[in-house]
Amino acid sequence: MKTAGSIESHAELAEAGREFYRRGWVLGTSGNFSMLSSREPMRICITSSGVDKGKLDETGFLELDENAQIVQGFGSPSAETLLHLTVYRALPKVGSVLHTHSVWGVILSDVFLKGGAIEIKGYEMLKGLSGVTTHEHTEWVPIIENSQNYDALSAQIEALLHDNPGIHGFYLHRHGLYTWGDSVAEVRRHVEIFEFLFEVVGRALRTT
Amino acid sequence: MKTAGSIESHAELAEAGREFYRRGWVLGTSGNFSMLSSREPMRICITSSGVDKGKLDETGFLELDENAQIVQGFGSPSAETLLHLTVYRALPKVGSVLHTHSVWGVILSDVFLKGGAIEIKGYEMLKGLSGVTTHEHTEWVPIIENSQNYDALSAQIEALLHDNPGIHGFYLHRHGLYTWGDSVAEVRRHVEIFEFLFEVVGRALRTT
Amino acid sequence: MKTAGSIESHAELAEAGREFYRRGWVLGTSGNFSMLSSREPMRICITSSGVDKGKLDETGFLELDENAQIVQGFGSPSAETLLHLTVYRALPKVGSVLHTHSVWGVILSDVFLKGGAIEIKGYEMLKGLSGVTTHEHTEWVPIIENSQNYDALSAQIEALLHDNPGIHGFYLHRHGLYTWGDSVAEVRRHVEIFEFLFEVVGRALRTT
Amino acid sequence: MKTAGSIESHAELAEAGREFYRRGWVLGTSGNFSMLSSREPMRICITSSGVDKGKLDETGFLELDENAQIVQGFGSPSAETLLHLTVYRALPKVGSVLHTHSVWGVILSDVFLKGGAIEIKGYEMLKGLSGVTTHEHTEWVPIIENSQNYDALSAQIEALLHDNPGIHGFYLHRHGLYTWGDSVAEVRRHVEIFEFLFEVVGRALRTT
Repeated sequence: MKTAGSIESHAELAEAGREFYRRGWVLGTSGNFSMLSSREPMRICITSSGVDKGKLDETGFLELDENAQIVQGFGSPSAETLLHLTVYRALPKVGSVLHTHSVWGVILSDVFLKGGAIEIKGYEMLKGLSGVTTHEHTEWVPIIENSQNYDALSAQIEALLHDNPGIHGFYLHRHGLYTWGDSVAEVRRHVEIFEFLFEVVGRALRTT
Repeated sequence: MKTAGSIESHAELAEAGREFYRRGWVLGTSGNFSMLSSREPMRICITSSGVDKGKLDETGFLELDENAQIVQGFGSPSAETLLHLTVYRALPKVGSVLHTHSVWGVILSDVFLKGGAIEIKGYEMLKGLSGVTTHEHTEWVPIIENSQNYDALSAQIEALLHDNPGIHGFYLHRHGLYTWGDSVAEVRRHVEIFEFLFEVVGRALRTT
Repeated sequence: MKTAGSIESHAELAEAGREFYRRGWVLGTSGNFSMLSSREPMRICITSSGVDKGKLDETGFLELDENAQIVQGFGSPSAETLLHLTVYRALPKVGSVLHTHSVWGVILSDVFLKGGAIEIKGYEMLKGLSGVTTHEHTEWVPIIENSQNYDALSAQIEALLHDNPGIHGFYLHRHGLYTWGDSVAEVRRHVEIFEFLFEVVGRALRTT
Repeated sequence: MKTAGSIESHAELAEAGREFYRRGWVLGTSGNFSMLSSREPMRICITSSGVDKGKLDETGFLELDENAQIVQGFGSPSAETLLHLTVYRALPKVGSVLHTHSVWGVILSDVFLKGGAIEIKGYEMLKGLSGVTTHEHTEWVPIIENSQNYDALSAQIEALLHDNPGIHGFYLHRHGLYTWGDSVAEVRRHVEIFEFLFEVVGRALRTT
């Protein structure tokens, strides 16, 4: 496993945050970015609650243990920290988790709500998702009903990942995307791939 | 109350202006940004009329008293200064007021005109508005008929805020958004939240 | 009259070009920017043909006389230079002329072709056009059939401006906008105002 | 023929890559950029597989021979290298080939699939394509069914270019654009022209 918590990754995560802000995917202090510092015992590095992602630097992160208690850093963790921890526990190869809010993703989470997942198939860009080797692939992004009860959400997501370990992300309805990868570089690529494909699917559906 | 007129806030307001210009929300010298320097006696710092917001710095601001008379600085105040003063008088905790013009906001002010307000509900991003703690919230952004008579507009807005002290902004029809916060950081976040949600609602309504 | 040909204006024009490129209004070496150096005898400073506007600096300009002959500089003038000269001759207060190509403008020039002009009314942003003092204004942007015969086009535009001296611009069908002002700052503002309003009108018409 | 492999062109290609990334045309490590270093024997300089185009510099390129074997540089060539080599062999004046993935292009490759080509006609911007001298031109961008079998794709494209030597690009269905030019500057202009026109055609068709 990669030592995801290295100094290089830390700066990489902050840079991804500033860039995603510029593109409108983490406006208004929304979004959360994390990476795994250590798996045994579990330690994650995650953005503090309420940080402006356009100015994200190393002071915007906290180090937390498996119970979401602060090990290092100033500030308070977001309630959504629980969902990050759930992803790391459920998927043993994950080194970084990103959560973003975009216009097209939010719209598609409405459009595809009845079907239970955003369906994306037949695009070459799908090959940017880890392990996908052909455009003849169908990616399902499960849509989870949004809630302010993060304990309940965590349990729901734990079950989802147990049943669908091959998915690359899920969407909280009218809220935002969670996606992950073995490294910061990989999960950053996953965000770009999903956002590109959400825009293609959204515009093609005339939902604009 | 925060000392909104500190040197730090001043630079922060100019930076917000340059960034909002880059995003197309204050093109063509449109928009006005202000912050409270002192409440008793009332002193506000506000952009001069006709300033290019893409190059906004400390020379682009005037200090005015409660009657919109210049206390300090060169240039002339915009006619819209009266609306800023009205907001500060009506809402005692407000430290900064921003006025922006965006494509999606202008379109929604037409689409929702008959209902009297832009209605936004069910989105997680609503939690970026001060005091909103759940996505199960409905935000109403009242639409006010545009006018070149700013005295009349001020009276109308004073009444609006008296009756609806919990709103986070209002929209002048086919003109632009007024929103406010206790600090520059908060009102800047409010603009980003509203613009994100206007785009989501606009695209989802197929009004594009 | 302003001495539009001053060194400051020259740099301002190059900066406007780079910024408009960034926004996608002069892609692929399209667009032409000019300013008046002297009215008697007429001398204009104008971008050379084929220059990448993203890198525009003082080496990208030619000085021409009233017959479009080069007085100073290297390169060759665009065929569209004739239209710039026609505007300066027809409108005695004009100090700068900008020609841009945008997605929304091109689309509206199709949508409004039958009516002969892009019609824009009721928006506050119209006040950014020189001399307009209320949103209760209707701006007509005449649409001219595109042609590669610039002598014929010049004659047509001369007649247009003679009959409609109060317009702020015209549109060559499926080609681009011509707009002008007494200074570089004013015409730059006019481009921003028109592009903002084209996008609003275009999206509102569901032509997207 | 231009010495396309000069140091200046190399930096120019990297700069084009970073700029295209910024515009969203090569997200998620998608896209490939190449230029001819020598025609006899054939040597091309091409981006390595999996490179982030937002940070493209001279270390992101490989030099390959006519059989796609590495002559110089570290990394592995993309499978799509074969298509670049096919274009250089089929069209003797080509000095650079760019492959990009954009939202509007992907959508149009679906919309125009039955007709076999994206049809673009009547726009002034077409004059930005090499050799086009009037807006009264129809450009056909053939749509090729996407495949992971690049040998078969190469053969298909060789036949396409043999029969249609005057085209300026082709589109792999739901995948991306291939376009070329005698120099990096020319092909970069072709990408900008195509992307502008794809957006115009896409929005005008109401496929958004």
